[in-house]
Amino acid sequence: MELPEPPYYAVIFTSRRTDGDRGYAERAAYMAELAAKQPGYLGMNSVRDESGLGITVSYWRDEDSITGWRTNLEHTETRNHGRAEWYRSFDVQVSRVERAYCFERP
Amino acid sequence: MELPEPPYYAVIFTSRRTDGDRGYAERAAYMAELAAKQPGYLGMNSVRDESGLGITVSYWRDEDSITGWRTNLEHTETRNHGRAEWYRSFDVQVSRVERAYCFERP
Repeated sequence: MELPEPPYYAVIFTSRRTDGDRGYAERAAYMAELAAKQPGYLGMNSVRDESGLGITVSYWRDEDSITGWRTNLEHTETRNHGRAEWYRSFDVQVSRVERAYCFERP
Repeated sequence: MELPEPPYYAVIFTSRRTDGDRGYAERAAYMAELAAKQPGYLGMNSVRDESGLGITVSYWRDEDSITGWRTNLEHTETRNHGRAEWYRSFDVQVSRVERAYCFERP
């Protein structure tokens, strides 16, 4: 994933799943595709371990991009479904990336 | 994890492990304990999946807390060891959390 020079925005989504898939995997894949088409989308990393704890970080150009995605109708419907079916709990932080660095094994 | 009202800081560490443990698990557990003792530490979530992709987000009160942890001698030694042994690649973003919300299943 190629990110620009800061500043840009990161949305940190930390969640615990309910038991069973309940249509989650398919919908999550579709939402990732849909997010990637939004204006200002920069990238996403998502990890979930066997315990059901997951962290997804999506990267956005600016606050307007985040607002655009938050108010997307399909995303809003999916979030409502997520609260009803897929998540035991989650935390969201919207943050402004101020500096960044990386390491790649030579 | 109980986080204060924003603003506070999040350090997003996204990494891909090398193969094999190589002393990683023990050292990671020790570093998590050591971080939790630092001034301004607010909390940490860490997830790694079977593919070796991991995301760790640590939360800090302010920039000074992050600088304090970054310049901690044991942490610096461990980071150097991480580049030499444990990581194929990693990305770090230091970000300022501007707003946050949560959901807990009733």
